[in-house]
Amino acid sequence: MENLVLHGDFVYSKSSDDLAIYEDSYLIIENGLVQGIYPKIPPEFAGFAFHDFVGKLITPGFVDLHTHAAQYSIKGIQMDLELLPWLNNYVFKEESKFADEEYGAKVYGYFTDELLKSSTTRAVIFASIHSKTTLNFMDMLEKSGLKCYVGKVNMDRNSPDYLCETTADSVKSTKEWIERCSAYKNTRPILTPRFFPSCSEELLTELSKIHGETNLPVQSHLSENLSEVAWVKELCSDAKTYSEAYHKFGLFGGRGGKVVMAHCVHLEDRDIELLKENQVFVAHCPLSNMNLTSGVSPIKKLLKAGVKVGIGTDVAAGESLSVTENCKAAIQASKLRSHFLGDKFDQLTAKEAFFLATLGGGEFFGKVGSFEKGYEGDVVVFDDENLKSGRKFSPAERLERLFYTGTYSNVFAKYVSGKKIK
Amino acid sequence: MENLVLHGDFVYSKSSDDLAIYEDSYLIIENGLVQGIYPKIPPEFAGFAFHDFVGKLITPGFVDLHTHAAQYSIKGIQMDLELLPWLNNYVFKEESKFADEEYGAKVYGYFTDELLKSSTTRAVIFASIHSKTTLNFMDMLEKSGLKCYVGKVNMDRNSPDYLCETTADSVKSTKEWIERCSAYKNTRPILTPRFFPSCSEELLTELSKIHGETNLPVQSHLSENLSEVAWVKELCSDAKTYSEAYHKFGLFGGRGGKVVMAHCVHLEDRDIELLKENQVFVAHCPLSNMNLTSGVSPIKKLLKAGVKVGIGTDVAAGESLSVTENCKAAIQASKLRSHFLGDKFDQLTAKEAFFLATLGGGEFFGKVGSFEKGYEGDVVVFDDENLKSGRKFSPAERLERLFYTGTYSNVFAKYVSGKKIK
Repeated sequence: MENLVLHGDFVYSKSSDDLAIYEDSYLIIENGLVQGIYPKIPPEFAGFAFHDFVGKLITPGFVDLHTHAAQYSIKGIQMDLELLPWLNNYVFKEESKFADEEYGAKVYGYFTDELLKSSTTRAVIFASIHSKTTLNFMDMLEKSGLKCYVGKVNMDRNSPDYLCETTADSVKSTKEWIERCSAYKNTRPILTPRFFPSCSEELLTELSKIHGETNLPVQSHLSENLSEVAWVKELCSDAKTYSEAYHKFGLFGGRGGKVVMAHCVHLEDRDIELLKENQVFVAHCPLSNMNLTSGVSPIKKLLKAGVKVGIGTDVAAGESLSVTENCKAAIQASKLRSHFLGDKFDQLTAKEAFFLATLGGGEFFGKVGSFEKGYEGDVVVFDDENLKSGRKFSPAERLERLFYTGTYSNVFAKYVSGKKIK
Repeated sequence: MENLVLHGDFVYSKSSDDLAIYEDSYLIIENGLVQGIYPKIPPEFAGFAFHDFVGKLITPGFVDLHTHAAQYSIKGIQMDLELLPWLNNYVFKEESKFADEEYGAKVYGYFTDELLKSSTTRAVIFASIHSKTTLNFMDMLEKSGLKCYVGKVNMDRNSPDYLCETTADSVKSTKEWIERCSAYKNTRPILTPRFFPSCSEELLTELSKIHGETNLPVQSHLSENLSEVAWVKELCSDAKTYSEAYHKFGLFGGRGGKVVMAHCVHLEDRDIELLKENQVFVAHCPLSNMNLTSGVSPIKKLLKAGVKVGIGTDVAAGESLSVTENCKAAIQASKLRSHFLGDKFDQLTAKEAFFLATLGGGEFFGKVGSFEKGYEGDVVVFDDENLKSGRKFSPAERLERLFYTGTYSNVFAKYVSGKKIK
């Protein structure tokens, strides 16, 4: 078991507006879980392994609630379209290449390498419809020490021939894939109906059954783009709002397994009610929502309404796999939202973005994203020495600077459940 | 004189919507100026020094039309206020430290080091009101090989006691500073009334006289924030718009020296007319305008109106000294502007952002920002090998990827007027 003492300057979120700060202190991790932060090492932990990061800034690991590993190769290009034409012209073609195990191994290798370099310790990931390449990917992630949910994607309608399953095949391969996933310790399966338009009612019904029987979590997309919202209402005429369409099939929370929905940009009141009642997580993807001209999710409003929110990088619509960079983008996007809609109270602070990226999203994984006692020992050590300045900074300012000006070069060390993985 | 042949894949802007592309070709630089791009080295240039960058992407140097070197130490923090309170609470205090030559040397050293690492070859820079530290900074820039305009700032009203000059001192020290600048070859002075509210009518009149006598260029700020616009109209009651206030004092173009105005977010029709008529350059600062919740400048509209536009990083309101990163931000900000204002034709493309960052802003320096014959031999060589992907990319896609996912690590070499400076 992992028993450790880490020394440095600690910052973590107690809530969306409360930052806990402990400078020059000692974090005790016992059996992979946080035991506490102390000004000196208490004698009972004197025998624990000592990792000295004096002067470095230490935070809980960052959590990525939504990203597409199979789109890794097309990040940063072809950003000239909105969601539906972007999917049809670029994304589906790229994902279809993952039928080829060799191509999959290469790209998923790049993805895993970058995820390791980043501040992310846990991620919720879309693979593609191909279960064999998805399993190869999960092998890689398992070895990395990162803790991830990975989804073999389900698509049986409104999809091009080269990236579409029959309903029966989709269900069968999903069940087989879930069985194979029992071999993993760090890497867990998540049910992944791509989005409502890609899955027939029969397929959604079958996935819902698996969700009920296995308590596996579910990930999908919700209300990213206005054309998409209109399309869902056409496809599911007895759903008054987009979320009701998922809800009708039992895929919108309120059952054993957790649910996370990416985007949630264009929400109606009923959607917000359902998100809250059913404790569905929102993966806020600010870079993606800018790049596809989707808009900006009303995060401040969702937080006030008591909805659970985290950050998603949404590669490849989002160009960056860095959650810290998405923290900055979340603040910037909220400012433009506030400016154009004339709502001054709509702006996210650095403190709030940090909450979303750690404790907010971390809850999807259980007791994750805090240094309070009993939380998983997920830790990032930042070295901000190369961010030159004539001034000294407080820990809160150092965190803000890392959001705005940091790069992977600042991620010095990383632990998951007390195990050093970088 | 600099006589060179560079080998690689070339991309440059012919206009805002026309990208010239020459793969596996040879750029000839003769006496520091572009001679042409050829598929093979013509025999008459066979004796030129040969720099082989096979497989690398080569563009004109990037131009930063607006940044504040004296704010370098506070980039990435304290982004919780709008323009006027941000200046009063944070910026003026930081700039006042530049009375101390030692502090100035340290911070300007960091600034110069970062500028060298970036894709920028030319920049237009605000220093502070302190002429001695400004000269020390210009010494550093001169040695770097970068070609920059640097301004000793003028402020004699509406400024805190610790960062305010008397009118007479401001004029006197400006004149002395200009004389001292004759020692430089790469680093040229630019007149720098901070912004209309900081300069008395008497000071503006004196600066205008110098502008007329010396043909030195002028830099200032225009229409960044709605409170600022309202304040200027109060201060200068016979100006109907903000630009008219500068124009009244002969500081808004139409004379010998060029003029660049940062921001131009909230423009009235009269402002756009004056910008165009007087060939005043707009420095578009997208990151800064997001961070201070200023809004988004209508760049597409300005380009259509025939206004000259380039990119400014505006450190420290902008967190990044990278013009390439600001290209990405310009596209993203334009998309949110388009989304919230419902104007689909408002979105900037990567091609347009590249134009702004090279040829658009380059014109402020003369024949700069292109590989057409007779342009200055300003060159950036990008190595994009570390941006992993399973795909091959066209030169235009490689450029877009550098905007979205590149870092300083991708800037492999840099030339200014044919001289290798990195």
